[in-house]
Amino acid sequence: MNENAHAELPRTGPIAFAGSPIDRADHIRCDREKLAQQMNWRARVLLLHDLLPDIDDAGGLIWGSLADVDEDTDLVFLGMMDEKPCFAAVPDGGAGGPAYAMPRAWAAMQQLSPGDLAIYGGARSLVDWHARHRFCARCGQPTHIAKGGWQRNCAAREDGGCAAQHFPRTDPVTIMLVENPEYNGGSLLLGRQPRFPPRSFSALAGFVEPGETIEEAVAREVHEEAGVTVRDVRYIATQPWPFPSQLMIGCHSLTSDTEITLDEEELEEARWFSRADVAMALEDMKQGGAGEMAPFIAPQPTAIAYSLLRWWLERTK
Amino acid sequence: MNENAHAELPRTGPIAFAGSPIDRADHIRCDREKLAQQMNWRARVLLLHDLLPDIDDAGGLIWGSLADVDEDTDLVFLGMMDEKPCFAAVPDGGAGGPAYAMPRAWAAMQQLSPGDLAIYGGARSLVDWHARHRFCARCGQPTHIAKGGWQRNCAAREDGGCAAQHFPRTDPVTIMLVENPEYNGGSLLLGRQPRFPPRSFSALAGFVEPGETIEEAVAREVHEEAGVTVRDVRYIATQPWPFPSQLMIGCHSLTSDTEITLDEEELEEARWFSRADVAMALEDMKQGGAGEMAPFIAPQPTAIAYSLLRWWLERTK
Repeated sequence: MNENAHAELPRTGPIAFAGSPIDRADHIRCDREKLAQQMNWRARVLLLHDLLPDIDDAGGLIWGSLADVDEDTDLVFLGMMDEKPCFAAVPDGGAGGPAYAMPRAWAAMQQLSPGDLAIYGGARSLVDWHARHRFCARCGQPTHIAKGGWQRNCAAREDGGCAAQHFPRTDPVTIMLVENPEYNGGSLLLGRQPRFPPRSFSALAGFVEPGETIEEAVAREVHEEAGVTVRDVRYIATQPWPFPSQLMIGCHSLTSDTEITLDEEELEEARWFSRADVAMALEDMKQGGAGEMAPFIAPQPTAIAYSLLRWWLERTK
Repeated sequence: MNENAHAELPRTGPIAFAGSPIDRADHIRCDREKLAQQMNWRARVLLLHDLLPDIDDAGGLIWGSLADVDEDTDLVFLGMMDEKPCFAAVPDGGAGGPAYAMPRAWAAMQQLSPGDLAIYGGARSLVDWHARHRFCARCGQPTHIAKGGWQRNCAAREDGGCAAQHFPRTDPVTIMLVENPEYNGGSLLLGRQPRFPPRSFSALAGFVEPGETIEEAVAREVHEEAGVTVRDVRYIATQPWPFPSQLMIGCHSLTSDTEITLDEEELEEARWFSRADVAMALEDMKQGGAGEMAPFIAPQPTAIAYSLLRWWLERTK
């Protein structure tokens, strides 16, 4: 536990997908009558195509109105913004694959302004969850949308269902800096997965499993993937990541190990990078990220791994 | 982000359900051949009845062997302990209701030693997830257990399924101390839900939703439930909570507000408690928790809310 709970937090720039300007207006979504009142001509509706948004020239989301959706389209109530109710339409199909296989999603991330990126991310996670959860995991019967899209219900027992309630899923994932403060004047352990573009390295990461804390998950993942033992795991920041719906929990940890034992199922390579290496890679990424002059290609600025690397550099410079 | 990443962390005693002594042995669960090799006479099998364990007089879990389970019972590979493979058997039915309606589960929590409580918690979450996820949420067809119980797969398309993969669920929940440092020499906002026993108060809590950070979730929940605006949200500690499978993310926050606007759907009452109030309630809970001499009844020591309250008292005493 942290004894410096009142210390001022130095932040190293905004984290992508955080900072949504929408008021989630929980009291409306749970009240059938209030929700029905918001289904009016003022309502804005986010329409995604293949889960991608329409974007105007200024990096803003293009919203439709209720007139743009069929009457039988499921709608998720995102909340209120500028006194207007905001909805997102549930598409027929959900995400087909992982985020790294979605170049058009990555392009949209570059274009959108920070607030609209956060709105898009939250909406995308929700409508994708609905599209991929049309049936009850407990009994196999169809489910239907409820509470403004923040729940799905199985049919009542007399109607052949089991009456189970299902809620949108958010998967906690730890993503961690592993620092050996003695090695080469202070070095970080970064890895590359086989799917990464050439020369790209990032922080190690893995899902928090049932029965473990954040700190235990960090230690387990680093040991599994790189054979390195860490201590003093500290929480730094989180990012909601919408491909499909992770809570990325960014941490820092220390180690005295230098030897790496790779889990070749997970990682193609893992290496120690010095402060100068990381500084060059981040500077290169700021310039566009071609990487010719950098020792490795850093994560994209929209990834929390980028924010963690910046935090590490600025913390002790 | 936290600038004191290397500070020593004062801990206020162990957190219940954390600290499992099992090595999860990820390299075994993902390897069909290695996993089959562990299905031997040395294997220990945790058998739960109504999701409750058998406990010996010393507070230890009573394990069975593979001879104790039918051949068609699904088994989850928990990992290795004392060089023995450890499994848990998936029961026919999952949890029927919330934890507060399970007095026998609470009794088991008091009896078990810390390590065995952590093993039980993780195993309970996993087998309950299997019992409640026998069908594919995407297409409604039956799923089958895979990867030693760390996955369920829908049937292949040629067999009538959609080939979706499903993973055990862990829901991040924020639970937060809200401190007004000026009010009455430093006070905490605690609330009571209608289901709580009389005079019991605890920290406010709520699920992290898609599209928000931990800090944003804390601020939203406190505002929704009590109409109080917080600042300087800080992560303190986490607890894996197995009813059914939450990651309780304990935080601290500050406020200058004193007025409370209650969300009566969520809370029956919310009040400010002084340092002396909290100290008396924790001392009372240590004595058994009858509460006659205390201004309120504190959370049980197995709840992270109890650890957070202890942390708060010890931090500035």
